[in-house]
Amino acid sequence: MRSAPGEFEIIRDYFADAPIGEGVVLGVGDDCALLQPPAGALLATSVDTLVADRHFPASADPAAIAARALRVNLSDLAAMNAQPLWFTLALTLPHSDAAWLQKFADGLLQTAKAYGVSLVGGDTTCGPLSITIQVTGSSVKPLRRDGARIGDAVYVSGELGAAAAALPVVLGQKLAGEPDRDAAERAYYFPEPQLATAAAIGDIASSALDISDGLLADLGHICAASGVSADIDLHALPVAPLARQLAGERALELAASGGDDYQLCFTVPQEQVATLEKLGLDAVCIGTIVEGQGEVHAWLDGERWFPEAAGYEHF
Amino acid sequence: MRSAPGEFEIIRDYFADAPIGEGVVLGVGDDCALLQPPAGALLATSVDTLVADRHFPASADPAAIAARALRVNLSDLAAMNAQPLWFTLALTLPHSDAAWLQKFADGLLQTAKAYGVSLVGGDTTCGPLSITIQVTGSSVKPLRRDGARIGDAVYVSGELGAAAAALPVVLGQKLAGEPDRDAAERAYYFPEPQLATAAAIGDIASSALDISDGLLADLGHICAASGVSADIDLHALPVAPLARQLAGERALELAASGGDDYQLCFTVPQEQVATLEKLGLDAVCIGTIVEGQGEVHAWLDGERWFPEAAGYEHF
Repeated sequence: MRSAPGEFEIIRDYFADAPIGEGVVLGVGDDCALLQPPAGALLATSVDTLVADRHFPASADPAAIAARALRVNLSDLAAMNAQPLWFTLALTLPHSDAAWLQKFADGLLQTAKAYGVSLVGGDTTCGPLSITIQVTGSSVKPLRRDGARIGDAVYVSGELGAAAAALPVVLGQKLAGEPDRDAAERAYYFPEPQLATAAAIGDIASSALDISDGLLADLGHICAASGVSADIDLHALPVAPLARQLAGERALELAASGGDDYQLCFTVPQEQVATLEKLGLDAVCIGTIVEGQGEVHAWLDGERWFPEAAGYEHF
Repeated sequence: MRSAPGEFEIIRDYFADAPIGEGVVLGVGDDCALLQPPAGALLATSVDTLVADRHFPASADPAAIAARALRVNLSDLAAMNAQPLWFTLALTLPHSDAAWLQKFADGLLQTAKAYGVSLVGGDTTCGPLSITIQVTGSSVKPLRRDGARIGDAVYVSGELGAAAAALPVVLGQKLAGEPDRDAAERAYYFPEPQLATAAAIGDIASSALDISDGLLADLGHICAASGVSADIDLHALPVAPLARQLAGERALELAASGGDDYQLCFTVPQEQVATLEKLGLDAVCIGTIVEGQGEVHAWLDGERWFPEAAGYEHF
């Protein structure tokens, strides 16, 4: 039992092809990375840990685990309207497994290249499998959670429910019929960080976040931070076809309170709604911000609707 | 099994007293922290993971674990001559334990205040106990590993061997005599990041790092990065009195190849040695950089000396 940080060197070879982008003065290999921050922008930074058999099956494809770990973090940048710059990887592994590491590195670097983000540092330790990634981006027009105002329209991007509906398939649970495993794995492991949508709404939206825990729970975070409440029309939710295909009647519930889709939920002042609609984004209005104390009221055919499980509880 | 990052909120109350320093536009609680980087400096960033029962006993005082986790990271900033700005905490816990969390938070924030570094974000997940901290600092005169040149003098700051000698005491192993447990715990859990020494040598030293894995192994990293070798006189090593007290005859070996002291090892061009010596730093010359390919030759009374264990192996 000894502390020996900074030993990313031992697995550095696996990441030798990591893209090195603008602003990286010194990358992996010294006590610190040295980075030149962009002028005229704020830095946005977020850290997430994924634990084996809690956030992903330990036996999953290492490339898919890596892709998801980085995409989930990039989604936090999108939620703030920040453009990706750099990330670090803290990887805890039960043992050094060359084949696993190679696949993990391939998945990670493919994702890094796709989003133009540089791996600038890391740590590897021996222990139960877990992955901690911290991303940093630059933001000129950051979107926060605390800017929603009474009367604002509530929007969501893309489609909801696919990742939650895909989870039983990803976990190998027995399901009726022949589920589309490829589509399920794509929905769960390869969420699309909504960076372009965030950039488009940076001047328009009053608040935003990414939907990781479920729409109702996450919109609740906007409402709590902003000191308002929200009314949501469930019929307006953009339910993913894959959710209907995999979950049937439960698709709407998964769209409302399932997580892991990493779409954006954002609010738009009424005077900006016409401007937003002209952009032709893949985003729909699902409700309105109202007076209140952080509550989200979901309505279905004129009746209040309550999810069976209201978002993810961490402990 | 669901991914639900960003949920630092659930333990945020424990960290409510976190100091918020300069440049923190938005701290814990949104998708990202928003940070204003300092003008005219590079950012230096480093991440380390500490795993329970590998880097610290799971039963150790949570305040001491927290102090050590942050101090070890701050030492990486010192090694680059960077001044601390911000840090994030990714904490994986088997279960939510209020008493443990309170002590951990107290230890972390006391350390953060002492070094003027702001907690700006985090993640909490459920799983085997581990702590990942990423620190960011600003550096105007960064000290890298790759600047050592043939003829440079090799220095170390402070004293060596205390933490390695303290480890058996910290682990509760049975030892002869009555070891000073308080001194041992201080040496192991409360290493002093050498920020002031780093600032003093920023214009003088040609390379630097912090000694986490053991002097000979870490100096080897400087030599490898710089394309040189080093000759070290073991009689010149500043062996900590606590190392002699706890480890007796093994003290010199622990000073040479034990880790965890987090002192600096740095190289100084001969023409700068007089300037350095005038500063009156707590640092001594232990050898010279010579031609070679990354080897460290330790000498004792004219004979080559080899450690029993040459630094920490991570897997």
